[in-house]
Amino acid sequence: MDERIERHAKTLVDWSARVEAGEDVVVVVGEGAHDLAVAVAAELGERGAHPVSTYYSEEMQTAYLGAHDGEFEAAGSHQLALYENADSVLILRGTRNASEGADVPSDVRQAYHRAFQHLREARLDTDWVSTVHPTRSMAQRAGMGIAAYRDFVYDAVLRDWEALADEMAQLKTVLDEGDQVRIVKESDSSHEGSGGDRATAGGGLGETDLTMSVANRTAVNSAASVAYDSHNLPSGEVFTAPVMDSVEGTVAFDVPMTINNREVRDVRLTFEEGAVADWEAGRGAEAIAEVLDTDEEARYLGELGVGMNRGIDRPTGQILFDEKMAGTIHLALGRAYEANLAEGETGNESATHTDLITDMRRPGTRLEVDGEVIQRDGVFRWEDGFES
Amino acid sequence: MDERIERHAKTLVDWSARVEAGEDVVVVVGEGAHDLAVAVAAELGERGAHPVSTYYSEEMQTAYLGAHDGEFEAAGSHQLALYENADSVLILRGTRNASEGADVPSDVRQAYHRAFQHLREARLDTDWVSTVHPTRSMAQRAGMGIAAYRDFVYDAVLRDWEALADEMAQLKTVLDEGDQVRIVKESDSSHEGSGGDRATAGGGLGETDLTMSVANRTAVNSAASVAYDSHNLPSGEVFTAPVMDSVEGTVAFDVPMTINNREVRDVRLTFEEGAVADWEAGRGAEAIAEVLDTDEEARYLGELGVGMNRGIDRPTGQILFDEKMAGTIHLALGRAYEANLAEGETGNESATHTDLITDMRRPGTRLEVDGEVIQRDGVFRWEDGFES
Repeated sequence: MDERIERHAKTLVDWSARVEAGEDVVVVVGEGAHDLAVAVAAELGERGAHPVSTYYSEEMQTAYLGAHDGEFEAAGSHQLALYENADSVLILRGTRNASEGADVPSDVRQAYHRAFQHLREARLDTDWVSTVHPTRSMAQRAGMGIAAYRDFVYDAVLRDWEALADEMAQLKTVLDEGDQVRIVKESDSSHEGSGGDRATAGGGLGETDLTMSVANRTAVNSAASVAYDSHNLPSGEVFTAPVMDSVEGTVAFDVPMTINNREVRDVRLTFEEGAVADWEAGRGAEAIAEVLDTDEEARYLGELGVGMNRGIDRPTGQILFDEKMAGTIHLALGRAYEANLAEGETGNESATHTDLITDMRRPGTRLEVDGEVIQRDGVFRWEDGFES
Repeated sequence: MDERIERHAKTLVDWSARVEAGEDVVVVVGEGAHDLAVAVAAELGERGAHPVSTYYSEEMQTAYLGAHDGEFEAAGSHQLALYENADSVLILRGTRNASEGADVPSDVRQAYHRAFQHLREARLDTDWVSTVHPTRSMAQRAGMGIAAYRDFVYDAVLRDWEALADEMAQLKTVLDEGDQVRIVKESDSSHEGSGGDRATAGGGLGETDLTMSVANRTAVNSAASVAYDSHNLPSGEVFTAPVMDSVEGTVAFDVPMTINNREVRDVRLTFEEGAVADWEAGRGAEAIAEVLDTDEEARYLGELGVGMNRGIDRPTGQILFDEKMAGTIHLALGRAYEANLAEGETGNESATHTDLITDMRRPGTRLEVDGEVIQRDGVFRWEDGFES
C-alpha cells in the first residue's frame, strides 16, 4: 500500500476528527475509497474506537432513484438513529464515475433531498469530516494521469496543518477586527498598457473592484480539523460572511468551474446594495442564471473565502480542492455559514451556495482591509516578497 | 448486467425478506457484492422502501482487529440503534479473499465476538436474510471457474421456492408427528459384497446406524423466506432438533468440509446417551477435537437437517450451500435453534454449531421415522423411483 494512504488515514483520524478510544464512529466508504477505508480501519483499531462502515455507492443511488416513483414517505429512522448515536462521521469520497447520476430526473433527486434533509442535519451534528481518496474517475475530471493526480491530492492533504493553522490565524484576526474588505484586480490593459486577449483564461476580464463589510462577523480558520470548526480534509482557507447589502462593485472570476455538471468560464458580476445588478459569463451562462434564480437571496453573497493551501496549485474541477488553492479568493452566491454569524443572527439563507473563484496571483491585484493591503499579487504581507 | 442478478435481487426482496413500502432496510454489502447491491437498490426503490447500505469488508475487519489491543470496551450504540430501528437486514455476502482473516489472532477475534454479541442479536431480531453474490474467490474455494460457479449459485438461488416449500412441508409433517428417527447407510462391503476402498470419498467409511428422538420438537420448513422462519437464500432444507440424550449409534460423514479454515474428511462419530463417546477423522482431526472441546454440550447434537435443494449438486466448501444439497443429511454438534424447541424449552446451548454432512444418494441408505422409510437411496417416498 502507498504509505501516503496510511498518512492520510492518520491525519484524518488524529488531526481532523480527533477520534478517541471508545468512540462510536461511522465510516462512509465511497465506491472507490476501499484502500483508504482499510487504512482508516487500522487507525481506528489502534485507538480503540468502534467503527460502523456504510457504503456510499453512486450506482446504488442511481438505481434506487431511477426505480422510485419519487413520492418519498417519512422513513429512515434507522439511519437517523445511526447518526444520532455516532460521535464522528468520516466521509471517504472516491467516485468511480463522476457522471453516474447524470440520468436521474432532477425532480426525483430534489424530492429525495427534501425528504431526507433531517438525516443530513443529524450527520452535521456529529464531528464529521469529509475527505477524498484519489480515483481514476477524479483524475479524469482533473485532466490528469492517476499517478500525477495522487501526487496532487496528497500534496493537498499531507500538510503541516499546525503551521498552516498558525498562519491562517493571522488572516482570521485581520478579518475579525476589520470592517471594509476591498478586492482589486487591475485589468490587463490598464496594467500591461496594451489590449489583452479577452478569451485568455486568467486575464483580460476587465477590472475587478469590489467592496463589502465584514463588521461583526467571525472568520473561520479552516484548518481541516473539527477543533477549528473545519470539516474538510484538505482544507486551508479562511472564510467569513459579508454583510448582505454591503457588497458594491464588480468582480471577474477567471478560474474555470463546473456548476451542476456544466462548465462555467469568465463570470463577471456587478453588485449594487448587495444584490447582483448585472452579470455576464464567457461560458455556462445558463448555469449561472439557474443559480441566480434559485431564490431572492441567491443574488446576494454568503461567503468570502481566501484560499491558503499551497499544496493546491491548479483547479481540478472539484470545489473541495479548487476553493482552497493558495493565491485565490472565492465568493459564494447564496447561503452563509452559521459559524460566521453572531449567536442568534441570521445571514443569507438561500437554498444555494455556489462558489466562484478569482485568481489573485498576477500583477495588479490586492486584498485590502480597512485600507490596509493584506495581500498583493497573491503574496500576504507576512510572506517573503510582499511589496507594501 | 447478468439478468440473473436482477432475478436474484427480486427473489431476495420479495420472496425472502418480504420488503414493503416505507420499511427501513439495512443492506450489508460485501466487498465483492457490489453488482447485486445495485440490483437490490433498484428493487427497494421500486417498492418505496428506505435503504441504508453498510459495507462489510474482510480487509477492513482484518486491519481493524490487527491494530486493536484486544480490550474491547462497551461501544457500538450507533450500530445497535441502526439495527433496532430496522425492519429488515439484507446481507449480501461476496468475499474477494476467503483467507483474508487468516492472520488475525484467534483470541482477539473471540474477544471481539464476545464484546459485540448484543449487536448480532439485535440484527437477528429483524427480518434478516443472508445471501451470496458469486465472486472469483468463492469460485476458487469451490474449485470452479467463475462462469460455472455463477451457474451453480443461480441454480441454487433461482428456484421455484413455492413448489419446494410445498414439497418440504411433507417432510416437516412427518418429523413433527414422528418420534424415532433412524439413519442407515450400509457399508460398501456389506452392500457390494466386496471390501471397499476406505480412502475413497463417499464410500467405505463403514456402517452408519444412528437413532434419535425428535418427540415434541418442531421442524422448520426452510424455504428461504422470513415467512417460513428461514433466513438464508438459497435455503432448501427441513431441520429439527434431536432430544439431546436420545442419540445412539454411529454415523459416518463422507462430504468434504472446511471447519475453521481446515479441511475435514471422513469423520465418524459414535454416540452413547446423546454424547460423542468415540470418534475418528480421516483428515482434520484437530479441528474436530477443537469443536468437541468447546464446551460440554458441543459433544451433543443440536440439529438434524435434510437437504432438499436440487440446484445444489456438489459440495463447494461453503456450508450455506453444502448443507442444503439434495440427497444429504447434516447433523450439527452444538447449539440448537430456538425455532425447533417448544415455547420456554431450552435445548443444546453450546457456543458452537458445527455441521457435518453425509450423502444419502447411494445404495443401501435410508431415513426412517418410527420404522417407516421416508427416503431410500436419496429418493423420498413421494418422488418417482422410490422403492418402498
